[in-house]
Amino acid sequence: MKKVVTIGGGTGSYTVLRGLKKFPLDITAVVSMFDSGGSAGVLRDEFGVLPPGDVRRCIIALSEGKRRPILRDLFNFRFEQKGSPLNGHSFGNLLLLALSRIYGSDIEGIRKASELLDLKGKVLPVSLDNAHVHATLEDGTEIVGEANIDVPKHNGELKIKDLRLEPCARIFEETRTAILEANFIVIGPGDIYTSIIPNLLVKGMKEALKKSKGKTVAICNLMTKWGETNDAPASDMMRELLKYSGLKKFDYIICNTQKMDPKLVAAYAKEKKYPVVCDAELKDCAKEIITGGFFWKVDIARHDSGKIAKVLAGL
Amino acid sequence: MKKVVTIGGGTGSYTVLRGLKKFPLDITAVVSMFDSGGSAGVLRDEFGVLPPGDVRRCIIALSEGKRRPILRDLFNFRFEQKGSPLNGHSFGNLLLLALSRIYGSDIEGIRKASELLDLKGKVLPVSLDNAHVHATLEDGTEIVGEANIDVPKHNGELKIKDLRLEPCARIFEETRTAILEANFIVIGPGDIYTSIIPNLLVKGMKEALKKSKGKTVAICNLMTKWGETNDAPASDMMRELLKYSGLKKFDYIICNTQKMDPKLVAAYAKEKKYPVVCDAELKDCAKEIITGGFFWKVDIARHDSGKIAKVLAGL
Repeated sequence: MKKVVTIGGGTGSYTVLRGLKKFPLDITAVVSMFDSGGSAGVLRDEFGVLPPGDVRRCIIALSEGKRRPILRDLFNFRFEQKGSPLNGHSFGNLLLLALSRIYGSDIEGIRKASELLDLKGKVLPVSLDNAHVHATLEDGTEIVGEANIDVPKHNGELKIKDLRLEPCARIFEETRTAILEANFIVIGPGDIYTSIIPNLLVKGMKEALKKSKGKTVAICNLMTKWGETNDAPASDMMRELLKYSGLKKFDYIICNTQKMDPKLVAAYAKEKKYPVVCDAELKDCAKEIITGGFFWKVDIARHDSGKIAKVLAGL
Repeated sequence: MKKVVTIGGGTGSYTVLRGLKKFPLDITAVVSMFDSGGSAGVLRDEFGVLPPGDVRRCIIALSEGKRRPILRDLFNFRFEQKGSPLNGHSFGNLLLLALSRIYGSDIEGIRKASELLDLKGKVLPVSLDNAHVHATLEDGTEIVGEANIDVPKHNGELKIKDLRLEPCARIFEETRTAILEANFIVIGPGDIYTSIIPNLLVKGMKEALKKSKGKTVAICNLMTKWGETNDAPASDMMRELLKYSGLKKFDYIICNTQKMDPKLVAAYAKEKKYPVVCDAELKDCAKEIITGGFFWKVDIARHDSGKIAKVLAGL
């Protein structure tokens, strides 16, 4: 059975994993644990645990739905009750927190949650070290914390010149092994600086990617993101990923070329999000560029998990 | 298969159910949902749900351990983190709360939790109505809320003259049916005024107990409780239970006659708890009195679930 490792976090990995799990593949989802906002961020601050947000999403993506619908519903549930300190907390985050407390560590918590939800595959944190994402903007401004990069309070026009983790975080040994043994390593889609690159920043990741004989596949985002990629074409993003991964070229890049509905374009433009242009320079970033229509629905800018998985499984 | 209904809440029902589930019996645990203190009380106030504490304990008691050890651990877990608003919350309570929110009602939440934990038997709330326990003391003082009776802030020497629910709560229909169809109805052990009698106060309970052809079995507590039973002998407690249940006599009363270790007696005496005396008047309260040694261990005043279940199963 071919071994596939996905690197990312949040919605992007969720989409890829949901598609991949339908194929006979040995799947490992590698996720960053450097979030600082929302429910996960609060638990991180109060309990000193690794923020469980992206782990939770990947666990849901890989869970075998038929046997555990109730657990899936629970994992997805968020308390909404103004005036209660529970308001805004994701139940899945609380569950991961409780499991990590009961079984003594973050990684045991993730293992037990995976067991409970009958995962098809594995979810592994990129690192077990507690670190925060720091960004330096082109004017020298320093931004601390994933949440402050994700939703910029600074001037979003300014480009991110440098991203790093403080303190240094080392790659989790099991994650390193999974990368070394992978036949395919899928990077993205996802927010460049808040979901994907933080994974590449952990000590030992570059070496693992270099040493692995697995083919690398980068998936371009469908939309740009204000404060991270603004109006950059696909090649700009891919060059950033190459820079932080230490790779010269990816083996494959998957990039959407399907035109978006103008109404949808207009709706996203209000949030300063624009369709990513599959530009000519992209060919310099990979040995092979795979283009096509990868939209899920006409009314939302999201990848079709089935289409993406079909391409990946066919490589 | 014989049908057994237990009526109680908290630790007492937990002990009885853990023993009973090893026998080929159709078990229904009826629990009150009128708690006002602790984690359950906070959730009751903030979310307007029925307090899930006793339901949680009975669900754990009836869960089939081998298949769901992780869920059992989760259900039993309590957050302990000073400074966090989660501090003190039982994870099982949060889980029941989340399920009742997801599936739209308290009863659906209990059903889904029972499904998740593979119950051998059923846990049913005595009522779905939101009510509080009110007590009138012999000097006329009014005490509101289960928690204030359980841990008296008033003069605990004063006897409780009257107990009632406000507003009126009606018996849950499925609970009523279970009582009508039961072969045995087991009442207690447990705190008289905070765990057992609140169940008997719901509208329709007396009628159901009278109409049922099931044999009634009351289990005497091992220890008295300050502010509830003080130094009363077994017959005093049983007369209280008879008064609120509307029954003239129980079919059976199970009462411990094993002597307690003097060291243990001394330890409990510090909390003003004394061994319940199996007195001569007890015979007026039931057709048959079953006496014997029912201690679990020498160092804690708790019933042995195996011994109690063996007696019950043998009736």
